[in-house]
Amino acid sequence: MRTAIISLFLLAAAQTITAQTTKRARDWGIHIGVLPTGQWNAITDVPGVKVGQSTLIKGDNIRTGVTAIIPHEGNIFQQKVPAGIFVGNGFGKLAGTTQVMELGNLETPVVLTNTLNVATAMEAVIEYTLQQKGNEKVQSVNAVVGETNDSWLNDIRNHPVQKTDVRQALQNAQSGPVAEGNVGAGTGTLCFGFKGGIGTASRKLPPNLGGYTVGVLVQTNFGGVLQIDGAPVGKELGIFEFNDELKNRVDGSCMMVVATNAPLDSRNLQRLAKRAFMGLAKTGGIASNGSGDYVIAFSTADSVRIPYESSTPVRLVPALQNDYMSPLFMAAIEATEEAIINSLFAAKTMTGKDGHTMEALPVDKVMEILKKYGRVK
Amino acid sequence: MRTAIISLFLLAAAQTITAQTTKRARDWGIHIGVLPTGQWNAITDVPGVKVGQSTLIKGDNIRTGVTAIIPHEGNIFQQKVPAGIFVGNGFGKLAGTTQVMELGNLETPVVLTNTLNVATAMEAVIEYTLQQKGNEKVQSVNAVVGETNDSWLNDIRNHPVQKTDVRQALQNAQSGPVAEGNVGAGTGTLCFGFKGGIGTASRKLPPNLGGYTVGVLVQTNFGGVLQIDGAPVGKELGIFEFNDELKNRVDGSCMMVVATNAPLDSRNLQRLAKRAFMGLAKTGGIASNGSGDYVIAFSTADSVRIPYESSTPVRLVPALQNDYMSPLFMAAIEATEEAIINSLFAAKTMTGKDGHTMEALPVDKVMEILKKYGRVK
Amino acid sequence: MRTAIISLFLLAAAQTITAQTTKRARDWGIHIGVLPTGQWNAITDVPGVKVGQSTLIKGDNIRTGVTAIIPHEGNIFQQKVPAGIFVGNGFGKLAGTTQVMELGNLETPVVLTNTLNVATAMEAVIEYTLQQKGNEKVQSVNAVVGETNDSWLNDIRNHPVQKTDVRQALQNAQSGPVAEGNVGAGTGTLCFGFKGGIGTASRKLPPNLGGYTVGVLVQTNFGGVLQIDGAPVGKELGIFEFNDELKNRVDGSCMMVVATNAPLDSRNLQRLAKRAFMGLAKTGGIASNGSGDYVIAFSTADSVRIPYESSTPVRLVPALQNDYMSPLFMAAIEATEEAIINSLFAAKTMTGKDGHTMEALPVDKVMEILKKYGRVK
Amino acid sequence: MRTAIISLFLLAAAQTITAQTTKRARDWGIHIGVLPTGQWNAITDVPGVKVGQSTLIKGDNIRTGVTAIIPHEGNIFQQKVPAGIFVGNGFGKLAGTTQVMELGNLETPVVLTNTLNVATAMEAVIEYTLQQKGNEKVQSVNAVVGETNDSWLNDIRNHPVQKTDVRQALQNAQSGPVAEGNVGAGTGTLCFGFKGGIGTASRKLPPNLGGYTVGVLVQTNFGGVLQIDGAPVGKELGIFEFNDELKNRVDGSCMMVVATNAPLDSRNLQRLAKRAFMGLAKTGGIASNGSGDYVIAFSTADSVRIPYESSTPVRLVPALQNDYMSPLFMAAIEATEEAIINSLFAAKTMTGKDGHTMEALPVDKVMEILKKYGRVK
Repeated sequence: MRTAIISLFLLAAAQTITAQTTKRARDWGIHIGVLPTGQWNAITDVPGVKVGQSTLIKGDNIRTGVTAIIPHEGNIFQQKVPAGIFVGNGFGKLAGTTQVMELGNLETPVVLTNTLNVATAMEAVIEYTLQQKGNEKVQSVNAVVGETNDSWLNDIRNHPVQKTDVRQALQNAQSGPVAEGNVGAGTGTLCFGFKGGIGTASRKLPPNLGGYTVGVLVQTNFGGVLQIDGAPVGKELGIFEFNDELKNRVDGSCMMVVATNAPLDSRNLQRLAKRAFMGLAKTGGIASNGSGDYVIAFSTADSVRIPYESSTPVRLVPALQNDYMSPLFMAAIEATEEAIINSLFAAKTMTGKDGHTMEALPVDKVMEILKKYGRVK
Repeated sequence: MRTAIISLFLLAAAQTITAQTTKRARDWGIHIGVLPTGQWNAITDVPGVKVGQSTLIKGDNIRTGVTAIIPHEGNIFQQKVPAGIFVGNGFGKLAGTTQVMELGNLETPVVLTNTLNVATAMEAVIEYTLQQKGNEKVQSVNAVVGETNDSWLNDIRNHPVQKTDVRQALQNAQSGPVAEGNVGAGTGTLCFGFKGGIGTASRKLPPNLGGYTVGVLVQTNFGGVLQIDGAPVGKELGIFEFNDELKNRVDGSCMMVVATNAPLDSRNLQRLAKRAFMGLAKTGGIASNGSGDYVIAFSTADSVRIPYESSTPVRLVPALQNDYMSPLFMAAIEATEEAIINSLFAAKTMTGKDGHTMEALPVDKVMEILKKYGRVK
Repeated sequence: MRTAIISLFLLAAAQTITAQTTKRARDWGIHIGVLPTGQWNAITDVPGVKVGQSTLIKGDNIRTGVTAIIPHEGNIFQQKVPAGIFVGNGFGKLAGTTQVMELGNLETPVVLTNTLNVATAMEAVIEYTLQQKGNEKVQSVNAVVGETNDSWLNDIRNHPVQKTDVRQALQNAQSGPVAEGNVGAGTGTLCFGFKGGIGTASRKLPPNLGGYTVGVLVQTNFGGVLQIDGAPVGKELGIFEFNDELKNRVDGSCMMVVATNAPLDSRNLQRLAKRAFMGLAKTGGIASNGSGDYVIAFSTADSVRIPYESSTPVRLVPALQNDYMSPLFMAAIEATEEAIINSLFAAKTMTGKDGHTMEALPVDKVMEILKKYGRVK
Repeated sequence: MRTAIISLFLLAAAQTITAQTTKRARDWGIHIGVLPTGQWNAITDVPGVKVGQSTLIKGDNIRTGVTAIIPHEGNIFQQKVPAGIFVGNGFGKLAGTTQVMELGNLETPVVLTNTLNVATAMEAVIEYTLQQKGNEKVQSVNAVVGETNDSWLNDIRNHPVQKTDVRQALQNAQSGPVAEGNVGAGTGTLCFGFKGGIGTASRKLPPNLGGYTVGVLVQTNFGGVLQIDGAPVGKELGIFEFNDELKNRVDGSCMMVVATNAPLDSRNLQRLAKRAFMGLAKTGGIASNGSGDYVIAFSTADSVRIPYESSTPVRLVPALQNDYMSPLFMAAIEATEEAIINSLFAAKTMTGKDGHTMEALPVDKVMEILKKYGRVK
């Protein structure tokens, strides 16, 4: 087992390198929205946020993995972060939803994986939390685990993800650039009739709009009629939902994770989460019946963290007022749209279960379309 | 019209006096719950809260009115209060719900009236707000107006409540004891097969549980199987829902307003609101299909008020932590249960529309039942 | 008053003619989405649906009105239609929400007007319902009235809409083409920094996807970064939210009404409603803090109507299964996007309150941009 | 392992026998509510419903288990049942919530266990479903698993429940009488300061109210001020929340499962679920901050089942109309109240983790109190 873990680690490392050398949407000259990005154009631009991934590509049939988003460097359970969830379309299994909604906070990392491995990931997150220093007496853990269904390329019934894979994703989490495409929980996903995967992006508001950063990470596995920066790519390629050309119909899901360093309470985080769903809409997603489209948003601001135990009944908490939310809304929409497009540019053609092959986005053709529609020079 | 108003005012005044001389549940030796009450055992025990009422008893057919709850003495629109709403059963017309839920605050008094006069009351609340000093530039007002249906005793189709009646309730609002029974919005309501009305109660937590006050006001107009402090009064009297003896079936509603001086955010106020619904359950209410059972809860703490306009994007707000909410929950349950019972003890037999008569709770028989069941000596 | 009504009627008639001679988005060669439209490309393509409007342009300061959508030709109260509501951003006053959500049906026409006249419209809808033949014994009416805030062009504090205006909109409702732009509830609205208004569109699914029609009507009064069929119009014009060029910031709202003849239950209608919000996102809307973005969706299928009184406890109701919803979702997204764009093309420059002028969408410049971005030839 | 399973099976069998010989609330002369019970006064009175339990009492520290409720005898995944969920207080981990809410159905048995074993139970339910005949191609399973926290008596951090325990509960499920008290998921729970556990009850409506059966099963692990049939038991014993006498504060949870053979759609099942929460309120529960109080309600009527795959887009479904729901509401309230009380009467004193002992309800004293308060003779 140890060997396997090491080899997976090397694989993940290799993927990371590959991902870094892949051109992202912005490298192709695509500039979505009007707001500037953060340094890495990634969820990790939000200070303290780390992302870790385990990629499982084994034999002919296993194409799946785990992506973990860690809100801050401390003990999340002891220093919970305010959080909100928006359910775009609830055909999904996001564990932990009701407690986040009731208490307004998140007490574990957010972990993404495939549909039938949510329970495995929960077990791993619970163990991880119970074993953390300081959590020796913890008796209840609300593991937040999302999923999309990668069963077209991945033998999902075979229970491929083990707890060690989840643990690995949690352990290799880092700040800085984030691997995109066929990595982690995006290893086997499909999007708009092409290979989907993990994508990320960020926006940094100018000082007069608050100066906050909003970062988004997505696991793309859904369908509709693809638009890239407004250009009708799906229509031009003839590959879209309900079109006969779309042989391998995608009726999947999109998990979206939104981080910000703005000091928001859970109510405004839920509102922020809803805007990520609007970003999904802008890519041409339709939130089809079978899609599990969820957004979880959290604030990393030090000052809003919620101590597990506190002898002080009343906390004094900074809260951004309603009137100042709109720029953050715009940032979440833009970053989500770009994160989804990034996932498509990064994902490579993949062959998996039963010999199924899903082609990557045909970048050359796409760039021609984007030129035709004036979106790149 | 002026004459009418004056006479109504006198009537209201008379009702107030009557109400004060009526024995309340506690005066009969009934002690619901385990927590102590506030000074008046009324929603007005929460500092700053005022209640005003207009009672309309005209001719044979008009039996209705208005009850207004004002959260604090200042300009509510300019200094909004955090608020949450729980919809127990949504067969009702509570105006303003979605904005309270989205923004987490209340910007007008809460006004209660009959089902078909909600719009009239909204107009009055909007005018009242627009005309308040300091609101000269206000262009949007979220009037919160609840209702129950008093059409068995009141000619509701005749549009009896006028804007002046609402204005009067707002103007005569006062702190201190609150008139109960056949007053204000409770003038024509029915409850458990008896005459219902307005009721109120409060709980004051001991210092070690926070020392906060929770006050509740209800407009009772619903059915089920009446229990008073646990004693099976409806069953003993043979008057309950689905029993043949209950000739005039009540399929009504209950509006519940909860005030507290605890510094709560809107999320925890929504949770507090839900507990009032539990208090309703303890009286034997069943939230029948036709019942519009709503709770609106708000915090009057100075420190949590939300300024209409603010040049400060981030406010520092005290917030009672989740772990310290449970005593407030218990207080809301107890105060709601007692407020409902108070409405029944205060209401008198009323004859109204089409000669319909609804008997008051038969207090003598009820006291016998309570003795039999050990609830009073 | 009668004179005023007549002149308004003529004005409305004139507007109707104007609207018909105005080129709509599709007439300009803009083809949003991939699905075909219905005959009129209007909400009235859904059999039985009628739209009526009252336009109030009086003196220098009144620029407002009423738009009514009537689900079917019968008595709506006696033959209710299944309905669902989605709250995109709840900074609004949509009356009737909680009852629609609880009972899953709509029992009145849907009426749209300005923010401070919701109560007036409710009164009118209630009176209209009480007076309808067959409703003589009705004692409770859940009037559904939506709004957006037209106070930049309209003296909203002056309470311009009277019950007669609402009544007129209900009475002049008709099938066939629908007037768009500066009419009815859209008379004084703003959108993306231009004159907004009423817009409508429809989609008719091909037989293999069910053959159903989805029609949408919108009252546009919101902001963001305008995209027309994906082209970055707002960005090119330099007129968008948070850009200095946007002098008259729009922090408004969008009311969306979705009709379909598919036999849907309230749960699936609520899901359909959510997709209209995705259509709004595709136009560049951001659902800003101050925006009241609501969708109400209803089914007009004869077979799903809900009788007010019924001696049959169990009804046999046809229900489209979940798996067949996705094409309807796509239709709602496309029709909403096009309805919003139609509102912009139809609206004309308007001068109103305090001499404020809001320019219409500069169609010539817009068409150049659309050419540049390959969206029209 | 096999040995262990066998011994556990024997233990469970023994518990079953014990349970049968224990007097239930009704055997003690306590008659809650006004409606008659079904044959077994259990959730299994709803035709087709089966209950299975695994009880884990091992060494000094393991006191936990699994309770499974199976909606019908067929393949639940292939023949889903309409379902609704109500979240009373969301401090809990009920898996599967959002999909039930979105799609309105339940596709697995409902399984209850302890807080930190939800993931294990999910894995077991998923495997069980994947392995069922006819499910060979299933790639997505929405396992519904609820929990309460039994960590005071049970070494919850030790991960005591294994998949085989869950499988066993599913396999030994049967109709007829249901073991109550210290069995299954109730083995280690506490309630109102006493030993809690599993409880069940049912109501059968008279023919004129529809004749339907409502059955409830609860896992009780919460606090408040205990009332039994209205009598103030907690107060009399001096054992209640926030009272100094309550040494081992209970801040737990209550899982409630409601079954009915009435043909209800998911909207009305959600409403029915909400009434179970009212039943909890009547026992004196306060839904404290730390309580995870959830209700899941489903309909077993053959005619409303939802086929997994169907070539018919439109199904004709019988649906009980809103107006006929109230008797079912009353039934759910009464059955939940009685199920909770039954759990207390059945549970025996238990010693577990760290030598903690939780006393059973002191039945003799309780009967004296009930006599004093006229509830039994």
